[in-house]
Amino acid sequence: MKDMTNLDDFEVGYDIPAKPGMDEADIQTPCLVLDLDALERNIKKMGDYAASHGMRHRVHGKMHKSVDVAKLQESLGGSCGVCCQKVSEAEVFARGGIKDVLVSNQVRDPAKINRLARLPKLGARTIVCVDDVANVADLSAAAVKHGTEIECLVEIDCGAGRCGVTTTPAVVDIAKAIDTAEGLKFSGIQAYQGAMQHMDSYDDRKAKLDVAVAMVKDAVDSLKSEGLECDIVGGGGTGSYYFESTSGVYNELQCGSYAFMDADYGRILDKDGNRIDQGEWENAFFILTSVMSHAKADKAIVDAGLKAQSVDSGLPVIFGRTDVEYVKCSDEHGVVMDPTGALQVNDKLKLVPGHCDPTANVHDWYVGVRNGKVETVWPVSARGHAY
Amino acid sequence: MKDMTNLDDFEVGYDIPAKPGMDEADIQTPCLVLDLDALERNIKKMGDYAASHGMRHRVHGKMHKSVDVAKLQESLGGSCGVCCQKVSEAEVFARGGIKDVLVSNQVRDPAKINRLARLPKLGARTIVCVDDVANVADLSAAAVKHGTEIECLVEIDCGAGRCGVTTTPAVVDIAKAIDTAEGLKFSGIQAYQGAMQHMDSYDDRKAKLDVAVAMVKDAVDSLKSEGLECDIVGGGGTGSYYFESTSGVYNELQCGSYAFMDADYGRILDKDGNRIDQGEWENAFFILTSVMSHAKADKAIVDAGLKAQSVDSGLPVIFGRTDVEYVKCSDEHGVVMDPTGALQVNDKLKLVPGHCDPTANVHDWYVGVRNGKVETVWPVSARGHAY
Repeated sequence: MKDMTNLDDFEVGYDIPAKPGMDEADIQTPCLVLDLDALERNIKKMGDYAASHGMRHRVHGKMHKSVDVAKLQESLGGSCGVCCQKVSEAEVFARGGIKDVLVSNQVRDPAKINRLARLPKLGARTIVCVDDVANVADLSAAAVKHGTEIECLVEIDCGAGRCGVTTTPAVVDIAKAIDTAEGLKFSGIQAYQGAMQHMDSYDDRKAKLDVAVAMVKDAVDSLKSEGLECDIVGGGGTGSYYFESTSGVYNELQCGSYAFMDADYGRILDKDGNRIDQGEWENAFFILTSVMSHAKADKAIVDAGLKAQSVDSGLPVIFGRTDVEYVKCSDEHGVVMDPTGALQVNDKLKLVPGHCDPTANVHDWYVGVRNGKVETVWPVSARGHAY
Repeated sequence: MKDMTNLDDFEVGYDIPAKPGMDEADIQTPCLVLDLDALERNIKKMGDYAASHGMRHRVHGKMHKSVDVAKLQESLGGSCGVCCQKVSEAEVFARGGIKDVLVSNQVRDPAKINRLARLPKLGARTIVCVDDVANVADLSAAAVKHGTEIECLVEIDCGAGRCGVTTTPAVVDIAKAIDTAEGLKFSGIQAYQGAMQHMDSYDDRKAKLDVAVAMVKDAVDSLKSEGLECDIVGGGGTGSYYFESTSGVYNELQCGSYAFMDADYGRILDKDGNRIDQGEWENAFFILTSVMSHAKADKAIVDAGLKAQSVDSGLPVIFGRTDVEYVKCSDEHGVVMDPTGALQVNDKLKLVPGHCDPTANVHDWYVGVRNGKVETVWPVSARGHAY
């Protein structure tokens, strides 16, 4: 079995980009680099915010897929647990020592339901989302078979247009079915508005979240009138957490990208019209890339292309530089316009990727850097655990 | 060290999607599936084409990153070796038993040059591209240090706008420097026109390739007049190989995507105006995905999103279905419009991804299927070897 916690098994430049103690200048590219100071400040800041607003913070582990980052969020940010999107991902976090794991997604495949029901045996409180009453009997049978308890949240589609039910009666029906099913516990509501997180305008985001809050309040009130209390009312992302925190109905945040930041999130505006990567959050997550060709005077070719990132949310931005621009991306190459000839072969650049989650997902390692030195090399622990 | 050739070390549903002998219906999703019959027919067809046109075929290993697929291309398609884009990738192929490896890219970082120079010790003929005379001394010093030979191709940028020189005098200058450098051998020209491969019209592609062929001919003639013979004149992709094969100057093809096909390549047209995935090549490469939610009557949510593919060249197409359409992609979800309610939870769909290379790069395994059974499970051997 591959053991990515034993760095001795990996060779720098072959299957790992760096090892602790190396100079930052010797890191092999392309790879992911974390600015540990910035990362720690982001984590601490969101933790403080949640605490001061009486919210729990269940950090979104699907963003980084890293047990090490999740543990830092626990120790520095006071997180109450993680959410993630796949059962196999949840197993990675549980095996890694996270004691409270929500699969903030539907689990329908029989083999996956069976694995989910075994998850409490790894020592983790296990929570899952449900949007179909037909799922309840299957979850219950698996929990009974393994002698475990699966906590269930009813998922409300409050605007994302993916999973989830859209009416309060549907929420109540599913909640009642969960409540009476052996091996299951009704624990509340999942209501993440994923579609508004990246809208530029604060007011536009607020308008969408107001709709979500109204839906969730109506559901929570109806459940209460049926004698069903919500231990968890969860949702909220990097573009909305202040709305959920002051809604009076949500009690758990589920933020992910705040810890790393990316170019697409960075462009959205706060209440005062400032980009959120100019004060609210710091860029802590970069693709380190090298210039590998400069055969044309005005163009540098770098070694980070489509296999070093996801461009679904736009091209990466070169951090701290306005004189050069990443303008094109092919499988293994990035084209960087260099009109003044500022770059030389082997120069390194830090790219802020368009979208952090799927960019982390193409790499095996995070290189944690502080004061010019490699301090940590963490596996992207749940990478490849897609099931 | 992770040993992905020993399947016993991996657990179905946790870190591997299937094992040989399983029914196709039991494969855990999302994952990559190869239709082995279609794959073998594609490989055989291109091999026969190259042979009948007097061309060698150096298959592009960066597309699939798989030693197993490369060996199939050798045995069934008569390939003369592989090309790939990274030194660490070349090491994977050489360690896996491929005897002739071209890094069809520039290698400039000192640590990478050192690894490249060691590659012949793994038993592989080692070839690299050069587009800067300043690179020659570094390559030479490394080859001398290790007592090996690195063969060098001068890279011409014949329209892709990435690496490569653009004039015949520049080609000749670099070739002469290589020819006189200890430890290096001048072996010819690399001239891949990457920018035209995906143009829809055959005539548009031909016009671009005509320009490339003229540049390459001019360079080869000038080199000859200087006493420098080109053992390799390499280039050609799935959208152009018929042009290079009949150019009278190229002698090695470097096709990759023909073996798998994808949605973006499939849309380009052949000489007769037919899509190339309707006769010329078969779709052999799929993302297998499952319906995980159908809470809205007209919309199914599937489990393959941005972490199961790259959408740089558009969304995936659902194979063999016209009644349902994949219309939206987020991190872990795909939204499939299902206007007639044809789909049920746990139904499986085969997606033809927009772009095969970066889609293969997010997965660890290929599940090879024939007659409804899992016949092989191959690692994406060079995944994560990005340096």
